[in-house]
Amino acid sequence: MRVYDTILKKRNGMELSTEEINHLIRGYMSGSVPDYQIAAFVMAVFFQGMTARETSDLTMAIVSSGEQVDLSGIAGIKVDKHSTGGVGDKTTLVLGPLVAAAGVPVAKMSGRGLGHTGGTIDKLESIPGFNTSLDRDVFIENVNRIGISIGGQTGNLAPADKKLYALRDVTATVDSIPLIASSVMSKKIAAGADAIVLDVKTGDGAFMKTLESAADLAKAMVEIGTRVGRQTVALITDMEQPLGNTVGNALEVREAVECLRGDGPPDLRELCLVLGSHMVYLAGKAASAEEAREQLEAFIDNGRGLEKFRELVENQGGDPSFIDNLSLLPQAGEKITVYSHRDGYISGIRAEQIGIAAMTLGAGRETKDSQIDHSVGIELMKKRGDKVNGGEPLAVICANNAEKADQVKELVLRAIEISQEPPEPGKLIWGQVTPEGVKMY
Amino acid sequence: MRVYDTILKKRNGMELSTEEINHLIRGYMSGSVPDYQIAAFVMAVFFQGMTARETSDLTMAIVSSGEQVDLSGIAGIKVDKHSTGGVGDKTTLVLGPLVAAAGVPVAKMSGRGLGHTGGTIDKLESIPGFNTSLDRDVFIENVNRIGISIGGQTGNLAPADKKLYALRDVTATVDSIPLIASSVMSKKIAAGADAIVLDVKTGDGAFMKTLESAADLAKAMVEIGTRVGRQTVALITDMEQPLGNTVGNALEVREAVECLRGDGPPDLRELCLVLGSHMVYLAGKAASAEEAREQLEAFIDNGRGLEKFRELVENQGGDPSFIDNLSLLPQAGEKITVYSHRDGYISGIRAEQIGIAAMTLGAGRETKDSQIDHSVGIELMKKRGDKVNGGEPLAVICANNAEKADQVKELVLRAIEISQEPPEPGKLIWGQVTPEGVKMY
Repeated sequence: MRVYDTILKKRNGMELSTEEINHLIRGYMSGSVPDYQIAAFVMAVFFQGMTARETSDLTMAIVSSGEQVDLSGIAGIKVDKHSTGGVGDKTTLVLGPLVAAAGVPVAKMSGRGLGHTGGTIDKLESIPGFNTSLDRDVFIENVNRIGISIGGQTGNLAPADKKLYALRDVTATVDSIPLIASSVMSKKIAAGADAIVLDVKTGDGAFMKTLESAADLAKAMVEIGTRVGRQTVALITDMEQPLGNTVGNALEVREAVECLRGDGPPDLRELCLVLGSHMVYLAGKAASAEEAREQLEAFIDNGRGLEKFRELVENQGGDPSFIDNLSLLPQAGEKITVYSHRDGYISGIRAEQIGIAAMTLGAGRETKDSQIDHSVGIELMKKRGDKVNGGEPLAVICANNAEKADQVKELVLRAIEISQEPPEPGKLIWGQVTPEGVKMY
Repeated sequence: MRVYDTILKKRNGMELSTEEINHLIRGYMSGSVPDYQIAAFVMAVFFQGMTARETSDLTMAIVSSGEQVDLSGIAGIKVDKHSTGGVGDKTTLVLGPLVAAAGVPVAKMSGRGLGHTGGTIDKLESIPGFNTSLDRDVFIENVNRIGISIGGQTGNLAPADKKLYALRDVTATVDSIPLIASSVMSKKIAAGADAIVLDVKTGDGAFMKTLESAADLAKAMVEIGTRVGRQTVALITDMEQPLGNTVGNALEVREAVECLRGDGPPDLRELCLVLGSHMVYLAGKAASAEEAREQLEAFIDNGRGLEKFRELVENQGGDPSFIDNLSLLPQAGEKITVYSHRDGYISGIRAEQIGIAAMTLGAGRETKDSQIDHSVGIELMKKRGDKVNGGEPLAVICANNAEKADQVKELVLRAIEISQEPPEPGKLIWGQVTPEGVKMY
């Protein structure tokens, strides 16, 4: 079997065999297949695509390149959740405790993430004392004891994905649906998930800018999950504006606590309930997603979700006192209010711009080695559709550096669009993809 | 300027600027742009193509990567000829002396070639004593003195082409028209040509299997030549069967001499007259291609072409006695005749198969380091359209190894197709491309 022929076949739009795909990935990892052949291959995939069968074969070839986490020491169906990435997304902090309260084992390995704000791990590290470096045994023992543990990724999971991604990143081949789908799914499968709930973001602040491309990616990932025996559901959700009102690590922890208390922003609450109810249903802890949603709503109302969050914090060495006094979370030195220059309606809040603004303040990593400042970020006082008067506050910038704050003020002002007429109402959940098909709302 | 953006732009079907193309090729040669980025780029070019402007910019970027031969020491318009490669193509040996006889300076640098049979240099080295390793000064002095010199390529011409070709060869990106066109033209331009006559082969034994793809390649190359100020004409010529009757180095030299004597095979004679007349016309030595053709026919009839060939051989240290006694050329030890098994008409002689058969005998190089046996090859006794009776000879295999000869006998028999009815008449010249447009015959 020659890699040349595999490239040629894909270039000419033919379907590759399982063996050809395995040979390619194994060769890439062993070093017998050079970067330049893989670069030509992924560019050919960009143009010719991959069938569902090829995409799931690629996924499993990537899984096989490394360790697979064995979660069999945890009873029950382990459901993982994955978001394709948005601005202000703190859903894991809310729905983790909620679904754990419903009896779903939450064994969550999260990343730090490179981007506008930190990953879940970075957010949790805003909590004084919270430890995310857990041995595999401790991690599993945690889940068995209190039903939830969130730790940084350990072990050599899907190394072929890292290598492929680094190559795609410099060869303009990132935005290929089969390549994105196999990348995401390989990591979830390697991390030991039995079932997977996907949150595919669409809109300005998402990787998938259009609804159509988001739906295509969702379909590709659900198809992979189904083919490799992992129940998978995808929601297509809005990222035209940031999720919730806060962007920044400690700010997002605060908002997650508020949400678990029942007084968080409605979009964050709704998304957590929708994603969480699918998790509960897939874990077999409810007869339907509707029934699961009722459970989760009750866990907000009766405080059991927040109680589970407190347990999680204490169990991983964090000081839980901030839960009752949110001002104990890291606070930025300067708070600068951004005011509206005119009357009107908020017609858009460009999520990507707000994300870049937060990163500029230090909430995210520009490079792998950047240090995150947990205290900084942006708090939105208005969301899309809200009426605003000239002189009313639009947002508060939490900064530790006056110069950066000034820079960011401009960015934030430009990101918030104000129109004379109220905008068309948007949607939070655009659609749902299951093995049975696509349902758009 | 980031190479990433150049790849992305091409991938998205946009036109690159001259500067982007120069930056890419310069970076590739300096090592700052890695192989894998170029691999992704050439695959993107495969799918998205290049405009005529981009293709000529790429050509000149490749030319600029190395030395450019200065032929200004030779008076007159230096016209080069290039063939895209076929089986049994010995035209340079015939038309070089013919056009030199017409007063066109022939300063020909040829390659050895990797493939079915050797390149022009290998063919000439069948001639005892013939020296093809010439210093640039000697080479130029030769042309000034006797009007013709044929030497191996010296100097570091178009090194980016070598590097690019080696990469394309292992990434399934060879068959892209802008990449082929820029590769061919960069070498001709670097070798100092003022004007270029291209012989673009089409058919089974050619790189371009279809007439359409050959016409596209011809158009792309003529467009490059025109844009960079080199008068260029392309002929699209037949390679459905080998050219002439012989395939193999010394066999082809013999046939070239026969052709110059006026008793060569009609297809070889015709092709040499057509290509040669364009060369003479472009060199300004005739008022029209028709007038040039009459000159060249006269040089066959009056022996001046053969005389020039003798001068060339003597001038480069060869023993010219073989010209009057062709049996002095290297002879193979065994001659095995292949007979027809049935009556009918030759409906096809699969050129590529015959080429492979000749290479198997040792006439060509399978790898860069293969040694060529000048004496071996295949002589066809019949050509397409000929009537044949069962038991009549179809071909003679000239071999130095009985086992290989046996192997090749089968290959040759299978390559020669015999039908009950005479085949549709083929064409030798399918079309002509000039800056004015395409004319198909």
